[in-house]
Amino acid sequence: MRRFIVGVMGAGQSADANDIDNAYELGRLIAQEGWILLSGGRDIGVMEAVNQGAKEIAGSITLGILPSVDSKPSPFVDIVIITDMHNARNNINVLSSDVVVACGCKGAGTVSEIALALKAGKPVILLGADTASITFFQKLGNGAVRIAEKPGQAIDIIKNDLA
Amino acid sequence: MRRFIVGVMGAGQSADANDIDNAYELGRLIAQEGWILLSGGRDIGVMEAVNQGAKEIAGSITLGILPSVDSKPSPFVDIVIITDMHNARNNINVLSSDVVVACGCKGAGTVSEIALALKAGKPVILLGADTASITFFQKLGNGAVRIAEKPGQAIDIIKNDLA
Amino acid sequence: MRRFIVGVMGAGQSADANDIDNAYELGRLIAQEGWILLSGGRDIGVMEAVNQGAKEIAGSITLGILPSVDSKPSPFVDIVIITDMHNARNNINVLSSDVVVACGCKGAGTVSEIALALKAGKPVILLGADTASITFFQKLGNGAVRIAEKPGQAIDIIKNDLA
Amino acid sequence: MRRFIVGVMGAGQSADANDIDNAYELGRLIAQEGWILLSGGRDIGVMEAVNQGAKEIAGSITLGILPSVDSKPSPFVDIVIITDMHNARNNINVLSSDVVVACGCKGAGTVSEIALALKAGKPVILLGADTASITFFQKLGNGAVRIAEKPGQAIDIIKNDLA
Repeated sequence: MRRFIVGVMGAGQSADANDIDNAYELGRLIAQEGWILLSGGRDIGVMEAVNQGAKEIAGSITLGILPSVDSKPSPFVDIVIITDMHNARNNINVLSSDVVVACGCKGAGTVSEIALALKAGKPVILLGADTASITFFQKLGNGAVRIAEKPGQAIDIIKNDLA
Repeated sequence: MRRFIVGVMGAGQSADANDIDNAYELGRLIAQEGWILLSGGRDIGVMEAVNQGAKEIAGSITLGILPSVDSKPSPFVDIVIITDMHNARNNINVLSSDVVVACGCKGAGTVSEIALALKAGKPVILLGADTASITFFQKLGNGAVRIAEKPGQAIDIIKNDLA
Repeated sequence: MRRFIVGVMGAGQSADANDIDNAYELGRLIAQEGWILLSGGRDIGVMEAVNQGAKEIAGSITLGILPSVDSKPSPFVDIVIITDMHNARNNINVLSSDVVVACGCKGAGTVSEIALALKAGKPVILLGADTASITFFQKLGNGAVRIAEKPGQAIDIIKNDLA
Repeated sequence: MRRFIVGVMGAGQSADANDIDNAYELGRLIAQEGWILLSGGRDIGVMEAVNQGAKEIAGSITLGILPSVDSKPSPFVDIVIITDMHNARNNINVLSSDVVVACGCKGAGTVSEIALALKAGKPVILLGADTASITFFQKLGNGAVRIAEKPGQAIDIIKNDLA
C-alpha cells in the first residue's frame, strides 16, 4: 500500500548549525509518525542530518534521490535512487513528496525545489526560514506555503492538514 | 544502511501469461531474500505481477518508478517515485538497481532498459527470453548478460554471484 | 562552430503586457546580434513574444525546449527540442544558455529557472523585475545577478560583459 | 517555421571505419537537403563524422545534445544543448528527431536509442547494420524499421516516405 512521503530539502555545504539541528529533529519526528523520509540523499548538511535523525527510530525508511552516479550517499539512507541527472532531479524530489519541507532557505538548489514544488501544486512548509524568503515565497505560493519555526510545528501542520 | 535493490523490467500490456507467472514468482522470491524490489511501478503486466508477488511476503518493500504524474501506480507498490519524464526514467530504473532482471524481452521499453543497463555496466539477467533476444543481448553485453529459464534460477545467480 | 546562446525565461499565461512587450523587443535585439535565442518554446506569453520578435530579423535562429510531447510549440520556433520531462527540462534550458535573461519574475517556473541558473553558475539578468524579486535574487546570486529595466540594457550587459 | 530534423545515432569509440565513412556522407547529404542534423554531439566516432560532413555544406545547421556539462562537443556542432542527464538524454535525442537513422548498431547506447525511438513511434532507418541487428529490430519495430546499405538510400527513404 502506498506510503505517505515527506520530502525534506535543504542545503549541503552551506547549511548552518540551526538548519542541521532542525533537520535532525525533523527526521526523527517524521520517522516516528511512520512516514517515509525523502531527501537529496547526500552525506552532507541537511541531507545527512535529516536521515541520521530518522534512523534513530526503529523501522524507519529513508529514501535518497541522488544527483549523480558519483554522488556519495549518506550512510543513513536505506534506499538509494540514482538519477544521474544532477539538478534536474530536484523536480523528482518534489513530485515524489506528498509534502515538501524546506529546512532553511539557503542555497539556490533549495530555492529551485521550493519553486518546482509550488509549480507542481505541492504543499510547502518553510522551516527556520529568514523573513525575506518567507515574504518572497508566500507571495509566489498563493496560500500553498506554510511557516514553521520548530520541527514539531512542521509535523503538526502535516498531521492536521496534509496527511 | 543501504539496501540491495533488484530491478525487474518487463512489458505492460504486451506481457504474456508466462511473463506474468514468472514476474509474480520472482517478486515473491526477491522479497523472501529481504531485497528491495524496484520496478516501473504501473498497475499492469509484469509491473503489477512482480509487485503483487513481493507483497505476499511480510515486511517486503516495493519501489515503483513511475513515468508520469498521470500514471496509475500498482496498489502493490509501497513507495512511489514520480519522475514525470516518461521513458527517460528507464535510465533511473537501471541505475538504481544493483542487478536488472528482464522478465521477457517483449516491447521496446524493456529492450531500452536492457541496453541502458549494459551501457551503465549493470549485470543483467534475461528471464524467459526467446532465443533471438538471448543471442542479440549476449553479443551486445560481452559477458554481463546471464540467462535464467525460471525465477528460482535468477535468484540463484544473484545470490551466488551478484549480491 | 559553436554559437552563442541567450536563454530567455518568463511566464506563459501569467505574463503581463509589460513582460510581453519586453520579450518581443528582447527577441528582436538578440537576433540582431546574431545570437541564438533559446526559450521554453511554447505558443504563449513570454515564450511566444520573444520568438516572434526574433523572427522579425532575417537569418535568426530560434530554439524551443518543449516540456512535453503534447506541448504546442510557438510557430516562431525554428528548432523544436522535445524533452518530455516537463519542469525538469528547466535545468536543460539554463545549462544550454550562455546567459539567462528572466523577462519578469512572475510564476514559479521562472523562479525555478533563475535558481537553477545560479546553481549552475550561469550569469542571470533580471529584466523588468519587481523590487522584492531583485532583492531576493541578488542576495541569492552573490554578484551573478544583473538588473535591466529595458531590453536594450540587457543586450548591453551581454555585449560588454558576457558574450 | 519549424524545421525538419534528422537524428543520427551511432557509436563513439566503438564506431568502425565503415560507420565513420557512412556518417560523414550522411551528414553531408542531410545538410544538402536543408534538414537540421541532430546528434549526441560529442567529438568522437559517428557523432564527430556526421557533423563534420554536414558542415561541408554552407548554411547547414548542426545540433548536438550533450550528455554532460563535462562532455566535449564536436567543433562541427553549431548549437550545443547541455542536458547533464547522461544516457537519459537518449530519449530527448529521439523525441526531437522527425526520423532516426542508426549509423551502425554497435554499442548499447545506440541500441537504447533505437528502442526508445520505436517506443515513441518514430520511424527508424538502420544504416550499415549487421544481419542479426536487422532481424532483431525489424521484429521489434513492426514495420517502423527501414534498412539502408548506403547513406544515399537513407536519404531516399526519408525524401520519399517521411519528410
